[in-house]
Amino acid sequence: MSARFSYLTSLTGSRTGEAYDPAVPQNLGADGSTLFARYDLDAVREAVNPDVIAGRPHDLWRYHELLPVQDPDAVHGFGEGMTPLIDLPKLGRHLGLNRLKFKDESALPTGTFKARGAAVGVARAAELGIRRIAMPTNGNAGAAWASYSARYGIELTAIQPVDAPRINRSESSFAGADISLIDGLISDAGRAIAQLVEKGEHFDVSTLKEPYRVEGKKTMGLEIAEQLGWRVPDVILYPTGGGVGLIGIHKALLELQELGWIPKDRMPRLVSVQAEGCDPIVRAFETGTENVEPLSDTSTIAFGVNVPSPMLGAPSVLNAVRSTHGIAVRVSDEDTMAALHAIAEDEGLLPCPEGAMTVAAAGALRRTGWIAEDDEVVLLNTGAGNKYGDVLGVSLPLLDRSGAPTGESL
Amino acid sequence: MSARFSYLTSLTGSRTGEAYDPAVPQNLGADGSTLFARYDLDAVREAVNPDVIAGRPHDLWRYHELLPVQDPDAVHGFGEGMTPLIDLPKLGRHLGLNRLKFKDESALPTGTFKARGAAVGVARAAELGIRRIAMPTNGNAGAAWASYSARYGIELTAIQPVDAPRINRSESSFAGADISLIDGLISDAGRAIAQLVEKGEHFDVSTLKEPYRVEGKKTMGLEIAEQLGWRVPDVILYPTGGGVGLIGIHKALLELQELGWIPKDRMPRLVSVQAEGCDPIVRAFETGTENVEPLSDTSTIAFGVNVPSPMLGAPSVLNAVRSTHGIAVRVSDEDTMAALHAIAEDEGLLPCPEGAMTVAAAGALRRTGWIAEDDEVVLLNTGAGNKYGDVLGVSLPLLDRSGAPTGESL
Repeated sequence: MSARFSYLTSLTGSRTGEAYDPAVPQNLGADGSTLFARYDLDAVREAVNPDVIAGRPHDLWRYHELLPVQDPDAVHGFGEGMTPLIDLPKLGRHLGLNRLKFKDESALPTGTFKARGAAVGVARAAELGIRRIAMPTNGNAGAAWASYSARYGIELTAIQPVDAPRINRSESSFAGADISLIDGLISDAGRAIAQLVEKGEHFDVSTLKEPYRVEGKKTMGLEIAEQLGWRVPDVILYPTGGGVGLIGIHKALLELQELGWIPKDRMPRLVSVQAEGCDPIVRAFETGTENVEPLSDTSTIAFGVNVPSPMLGAPSVLNAVRSTHGIAVRVSDEDTMAALHAIAEDEGLLPCPEGAMTVAAAGALRRTGWIAEDDEVVLLNTGAGNKYGDVLGVSLPLLDRSGAPTGESL
Repeated sequence: MSARFSYLTSLTGSRTGEAYDPAVPQNLGADGSTLFARYDLDAVREAVNPDVIAGRPHDLWRYHELLPVQDPDAVHGFGEGMTPLIDLPKLGRHLGLNRLKFKDESALPTGTFKARGAAVGVARAAELGIRRIAMPTNGNAGAAWASYSARYGIELTAIQPVDAPRINRSESSFAGADISLIDGLISDAGRAIAQLVEKGEHFDVSTLKEPYRVEGKKTMGLEIAEQLGWRVPDVILYPTGGGVGLIGIHKALLELQELGWIPKDRMPRLVSVQAEGCDPIVRAFETGTENVEPLSDTSTIAFGVNVPSPMLGAPSVLNAVRSTHGIAVRVSDEDTMAALHAIAEDEGLLPCPEGAMTVAAAGALRRTGWIAEDDEVVLLNTGAGNKYGDVLGVSLPLLDRSGAPTGESL
């Protein structure tokens, strides 16, 4: 048997398990649920192993057997992936966590984890012959998909809330995307995109409405396992908006268990971290239901997780949390800002507010004892704080040209 | 002979060659010129080779024999380095360059190449017992040094022009640096820092006033050579402010030649790219002198290269350019913006304006025939465009909450 680049076999409905053909463009299953990619893991186990992967290029395509793109020549990335896993000794001491680590997605193209979903999602869309795509975005996803769309020669139409970080407007626009602002939240943008898609000229790449974005996000879980020497930490904390990242990490670890590359009897407890001002997953977790209630008029400084109705992803997010004995917790914006200051002062790292939420949540869970001091804890920082000038303003003393204080601050 | 972590032997004055002790903090030589680190390259050649380096962690410390830090336990980085070298096929076709590549420093901590100088400079300062440092900055260097200073527990005082990118203020301030704004240019900030340093409480880490920042920048050259399979391209274009990066790349390639890791008879032509509004190096290159004339009231949208009097670095920059049969060229802000649009639309990459200057310069040098169509050309993108919201503003259509056009643009 000759080695293949991808061992993708089918797409299956997340509710019924019904199989769909991955060789043609697919959105949702017949029952309206998300489709997930399935691989011939027995064949993967024969074809490759961790030692082989260790010698490959240092990007997310090193896991190509577990990704959906069929043709190696169809990949035209930016060297994305294999972001650093950084020890946080000083912050860990302050929080009472002896083994605290930071998966830093700010190193990716466009400065956020959204590049993973776009790298794989756009490459696969191009391979399937799709030429025009559309999506709602809280800003960073639009920027990432605009970047890869330009790279692959695909046309992107995106709508983002007017309150999304301003820099996202420039990123998408410079890359040639057709980008509009909407006077509302991402749920409103989603409805507007759905209307556009109905006209039949765009393929819908909204969160979990096509099966390949989550495959890109999955590589976060693959990398964490490889970077820890093919084992898992005790706890992973993840800031949750649409939930694709957490779903992807969970899917990655299940696939690695089935491959036998990580122990089968051990899964990290997955923690979904949400903002007090937008906490639909936490509410559902606390009430024990499987489906979330959509919220409205939600608000948080961590704009990426201002997703009031993450309906498609919620069942999988809740399953990831519950099946791993994890938890869903909310963090106030005040605690997020305090956590941002703490990690910046202790370690010199400036995460995005969403990433800082995981710092705050880890501290709170340590204080309640839910996390033990010797637990190995991985914080997922989804992006660069330096894209959030809008919310990270400071006031600094102004000197005149000779260097003398003016008494003024700017 | 047991292997050492670093093969640093001495610091030598760039003008006289006089040797200084690297085991204690050093600023300039007695004649006021920059000190450069020297290594026992014969011993390095015995101790390590490219095959060994290939198996090391994917960061700039893989070259530790050629870096100044003595103790491996003194390194507490963020996994920095080994940034991607990306092919630019579509942009290359448009510019008539068949082998165009992009060294993308936006993947580094704080999103710019300044992290290299800070990673090595701060680690070495900490190892030498230095506790308080001071520097002028055009913004990104201050952000990077603030980040590593927090990580290593060093106190940083920095002064940056009030027109530096606003996000740099937040980055430095959140990391706990003592940061002030000055109503002037980096040359004014430099004078104010010199006054502060005279008081004797701060070690001066201004550009080329200490010998280790350039060692960090040197790793750009080491990485380009390794990523090309231990050979050099035909041309490297570099946006030049203080000039440390170009000096570092040149120094790296000379050391690799002496090691025999790259061919001795071939050096890339090094191109110093400056802005029309701030071109002291280009003026000196064109008039054939060795020293630059300081300028005043310079201006460019590429703020990082708004360095009106790069006196310390100029002789080394001019030597790097002239000895490699390179050239120094200026680019207008209009051409820089056009180049930014071109690379974003063609390839989906959003470089900083300084990085975009190299795109414009490559196109111009191709048109004059100075670069041939089959020359292998590396553009140095020094940082992420998404830190430059101030100059990359766009206007986008605003939809109301239902998705209908309002006729307004924001």
